[in-house]
Amino acid sequence: MLNIVKIGGNVIDDEALLAQFLSDFSAVRGYKILVHGGGKLATKLCDALHISTQMLEGRRVTDAETLKVVSMVYAGWINKSIVAQLHALGCHSVGLSGADGNAIPAVRRSPVPVDYGFVGDIKPGQINASFIQSLLEQGLVPVFSAITHDAHGSLLNSNADSVASSLAIAMSDMTPTRLIFCFEKNGVLRDPNNDASVIPEITRELYEEYKADGAISGGMIPKIDSAFNAIAFGVKEVVIGHARALNRGGGTTISS
Amino acid sequence: MLNIVKIGGNVIDDEALLAQFLSDFSAVRGYKILVHGGGKLATKLCDALHISTQMLEGRRVTDAETLKVVSMVYAGWINKSIVAQLHALGCHSVGLSGADGNAIPAVRRSPVPVDYGFVGDIKPGQINASFIQSLLEQGLVPVFSAITHDAHGSLLNSNADSVASSLAIAMSDMTPTRLIFCFEKNGVLRDPNNDASVIPEITRELYEEYKADGAISGGMIPKIDSAFNAIAFGVKEVVIGHARALNRGGGTTISS
Repeated sequence: MLNIVKIGGNVIDDEALLAQFLSDFSAVRGYKILVHGGGKLATKLCDALHISTQMLEGRRVTDAETLKVVSMVYAGWINKSIVAQLHALGCHSVGLSGADGNAIPAVRRSPVPVDYGFVGDIKPGQINASFIQSLLEQGLVPVFSAITHDAHGSLLNSNADSVASSLAIAMSDMTPTRLIFCFEKNGVLRDPNNDASVIPEITRELYEEYKADGAISGGMIPKIDSAFNAIAFGVKEVVIGHARALNRGGGTTISS
Repeated sequence: MLNIVKIGGNVIDDEALLAQFLSDFSAVRGYKILVHGGGKLATKLCDALHISTQMLEGRRVTDAETLKVVSMVYAGWINKSIVAQLHALGCHSVGLSGADGNAIPAVRRSPVPVDYGFVGDIKPGQINASFIQSLLEQGLVPVFSAITHDAHGSLLNSNADSVASSLAIAMSDMTPTRLIFCFEKNGVLRDPNNDASVIPEITRELYEEYKADGAISGGMIPKIDSAFNAIAFGVKEVVIGHARALNRGGGTTISS
């Protein structure tokens, strides 16, 4: 089984949590890939450089200067720091952006109706799965930032959740794949105010029930929709859980 | 023949020159590796972030904040931009730091007598040549920044000339290797004020003569010493020439 693990900015921003997570990740057996989000450093750097953060319909616009900052922070400092730390833990990793080896080509999002700038959408069918597989077979652990490229010379800023699920779908053609989203909660909660109310497993039927009774709502819906989409395209299992719980069981499993 | 080409900050800082160089580099046949230096962006970023540049005996000290900046700029923006541009030219490249795949482990320079901070010295014997060879055999073109790591969790800032010559020495064990330094002059000049006075070839004997008569002096001496060192350790040929002249002949060839 190939495990593709995604961590978000909340893990990146918490040095102790990141160190514990990387230690746990190193202990995951078999083929594995890490996908990481960004964290607050990019925003801090934009502020320090007086690059104004332009928001459109609740989403950040990636203008040319912002693209430079996120490429520096995500594909540079964060990616290489993680790789250096993993090597110290005996995990033989290689840090990549989607441009490297043309691993994850993307398409710049249409500027109509809303121009989000240098934002790249990913098609799982375009991913260079054989390159990634060859790294895995050499005993290497790929570590991806969410910086991609358009294959015409420009880098693009993609969503790390989409990078992880697109990778999982693409790799499923070659090897059974589990996709693990680590976030700041213990899993999908029956009661958002009760951290102990983790739903252990969600099937299609249960999902419809939970949506109907309001237990699952808001931002959780696109996350779970995307999980079911990954499963529809061949991913064996999607797990949503806490970064602290990797290798410790728990979390919510979504299966077909 | 494997060609290892090193470009410095002067090429990085000149958009048109970089574009022309990358186009020429794409046209180099056979196995090839690109090593790039830094350019002015790191200094600009340090200034914008009010990180003072500490100099000791004429060399920059890499403190923790400076290490973050050079990692962002060299391993992030510059490395990934070059890779994206090479892909657009049909050159299937993969951008790496020395931490990736433990390609170039380094040793933090002793703080005695002068503490230069997070600066890494490279031993060619430690380079992971088989990883690099496997990428070449897959038809990939490795593009290295001079960010390395100590294999104990810390990134290090290394000298790009040293990265290039260490790579050339290490790869020479596997495949005949030519090392090409691109800089801002047409080659080693007989008369520093005459750009047309390129010395086409320097042997050990000629080198001693040129040093004795003062034609070769100053900063050129460590460059040529390092070239002869590379040759002593198995590199077939070292070429020092202008970035504009890659594939166009010219430059100074140093051979055994």
